[in-house]
Amino acid sequence: MSLHQIVHEKVDQAIGVLREKNIDAWITFVRETELMRDPAMSLIVSPTLQVTWHSAFILTQNGDRIAIVGRFDKENIAQLGAYGEVITYDEGIGQPLVDTLRRLNPQSIAINTSEGDPAADGLSHGMWTTLLDILKGTPYSRLISAENVINSLRGRKTEAEIARVKDAVAETEAIFDELTAFLKPGLTEIEIAGLVHDRMRARGLTAAWEPDHCPAVTAGPNSPVGHAAPGAFKAEPGHLLHIDFGVAKNGYVSDLQRTWYLLNPGETKPPAKAQKAFDAVRGAILAGAAALKPGAVGWEVDQAARSTLMRSGYPEYLHATGHHIGQTVHDGATVLGPRWERYGQSAYGVVEAGNIFTLELGVVVSGRGFIGLEEDVLVTPNGLEWLSQPETELICV
Amino acid sequence: MSLHQIVHEKVDQAIGVLREKNIDAWITFVRETELMRDPAMSLIVSPTLQVTWHSAFILTQNGDRIAIVGRFDKENIAQLGAYGEVITYDEGIGQPLVDTLRRLNPQSIAINTSEGDPAADGLSHGMWTTLLDILKGTPYSRLISAENVINSLRGRKTEAEIARVKDAVAETEAIFDELTAFLKPGLTEIEIAGLVHDRMRARGLTAAWEPDHCPAVTAGPNSPVGHAAPGAFKAEPGHLLHIDFGVAKNGYVSDLQRTWYLLNPGETKPPAKAQKAFDAVRGAILAGAAALKPGAVGWEVDQAARSTLMRSGYPEYLHATGHHIGQTVHDGATVLGPRWERYGQSAYGVVEAGNIFTLELGVVVSGRGFIGLEEDVLVTPNGLEWLSQPETELICV
Repeated sequence: MSLHQIVHEKVDQAIGVLREKNIDAWITFVRETELMRDPAMSLIVSPTLQVTWHSAFILTQNGDRIAIVGRFDKENIAQLGAYGEVITYDEGIGQPLVDTLRRLNPQSIAINTSEGDPAADGLSHGMWTTLLDILKGTPYSRLISAENVINSLRGRKTEAEIARVKDAVAETEAIFDELTAFLKPGLTEIEIAGLVHDRMRARGLTAAWEPDHCPAVTAGPNSPVGHAAPGAFKAEPGHLLHIDFGVAKNGYVSDLQRTWYLLNPGETKPPAKAQKAFDAVRGAILAGAAALKPGAVGWEVDQAARSTLMRSGYPEYLHATGHHIGQTVHDGATVLGPRWERYGQSAYGVVEAGNIFTLELGVVVSGRGFIGLEEDVLVTPNGLEWLSQPETELICV
Repeated sequence: MSLHQIVHEKVDQAIGVLREKNIDAWITFVRETELMRDPAMSLIVSPTLQVTWHSAFILTQNGDRIAIVGRFDKENIAQLGAYGEVITYDEGIGQPLVDTLRRLNPQSIAINTSEGDPAADGLSHGMWTTLLDILKGTPYSRLISAENVINSLRGRKTEAEIARVKDAVAETEAIFDELTAFLKPGLTEIEIAGLVHDRMRARGLTAAWEPDHCPAVTAGPNSPVGHAAPGAFKAEPGHLLHIDFGVAKNGYVSDLQRTWYLLNPGETKPPAKAQKAFDAVRGAILAGAAALKPGAVGWEVDQAARSTLMRSGYPEYLHATGHHIGQTVHDGATVLGPRWERYGQSAYGVVEAGNIFTLELGVVVSGRGFIGLEEDVLVTPNGLEWLSQPETELICV
């Protein structure tokens, strides 16, 4: 299934979301997208295609799919096949846009503006004033935010999107397996990140986030935990090695964490303290997974995982338990996070079938390093599907 | 000179532009730039670096260089070295931003919003309402557009920027030379574009614009002229071959057009009709070049070239004679174009020293194909420096 077909699926889905939320029309209004690109374009126009002149992509709950574009952008948009009606102009978009709205006569029009969700805030302020100028004197100047439309559209993955995330996850797991075969004591974090990048490039993939921090590598007890760039710390026997890594493939990403234990000479399994910590982390992930179902609220899922870890006697982690993934590593507004100020409304979002979330948390083992796990999971109508093969035991090398 | 150093040059230059235009402060206000990136960031922050939380990059005519960023973005921004003061926050940017403005007490504040220039319109509408909320009740809520600041800043290239464009031009010319050696009758436009892409990739370069249309290739008299994707038309003896192509290297681009003539068996030079057309095109380019100096208005330069071509008896071309290049192939608001409605105010822009423009135009030779030339030139205080080696004779193969 091509990326064009994914756009077709998302456009169909968008019309369903407009019906569900009873919004008559949704307008994505853009220009010169090579300079700055409304994130909604990747969902309902194309992950790569650019337009130059002022362009409006209009979807309605009646099922209209109308693009208004400059003459020279017409052919590319028509070829997409997602917009049954492609209107072109030479002089300016104002008249054809007003004509189209008079024909559709929508009572509510959603536009891409949001203080809370950057993914739904693709309309620039200059384009907003341009749009108001165009609509002045018409009945169509009362605009609402499309943030609820965009949030559902990003969050509810279609079959083709799910297949692509699965593919990115499988590639990442294969790279982890290759790394396991390469791992030996004495490698620095930088060398380990280099091995991961080599394998990634050999597979024709790119990093899911900034390559300097993807993978993040934490070797042993002295390396700082978090998203710091890999450093000179070495993976030594008796230490834990933690990696947070994801790839992008065909426009969709993975995001996984794995933890290795480097056996001391003569050792056959991790020390009890590390094993106990691993079991606590794994148990908390499973508790989060059990709570992750349609209708659950973000903070409830977080609390299930967080409280399980704390009941095991480990300190609270200072981040959310999970986030959406899809075209990006934060691919939706809902966060499986605590009701802390910095998560704002996102922790109050409701989980929906078709969402793909990470489940991730970890603990420090003194003198050994950091144990962190992160799995990628799909919410289904009946519960949860693991997209990654969960790490159920520390990987010993 | 690294890209970081270019940012240092541009930040210095921005402070000079603020003084020149008597604007007290300029705020670039962004968040989650991986999702959508204000184009001004590539000039005054970094061509590649992203920030996650709400961030404000403040420059003043007093020389202040202040960044306000979320805690986790601090280290990256501090490492840039372009902002002497990096203020961080955990809760929200509102208080530190207001505190900073009270300290600076600017009488005028420019923000990145513009209906006319997409490069100066990087502030989203949601971020604009957020900013107004933050500034409510302060004396700092009267905001002006930074479009004049950004236009000058993009248009006036620094030494390091000029060096990079020169480098991209030299690479492009080398690829043209390699192509000349490969060219033979019977190759299709698609095959020729493939050869160009091969040479480009072998040099570790990327295309200056959408690769499907970069190069644009026009072989013989039946191929459509313009930015159409290369097709099945073949370069045949007795025909002209025209290529419009540019590369991106280290963040800066070239944009050149060259024309070849494929000799018939026994021929040693182009037919007189093609030679006459070439001379007219070349003469019009030279007329544009003579008019291109600091203080000239865009349409005057266009008229010098256009009227010269028309006096030679050729029809008017339906595009502008030139545009800025730099980080992108349309890297500034001024266009060397006619006073047609579609060029709006851009044809009234004033040429400045440090601008790098294309000079480009062409004519159809019936039965032969299209002759088009495009050169890249730097405006200096005293006139003009050719960054490309101008094509002074049709390249015969």
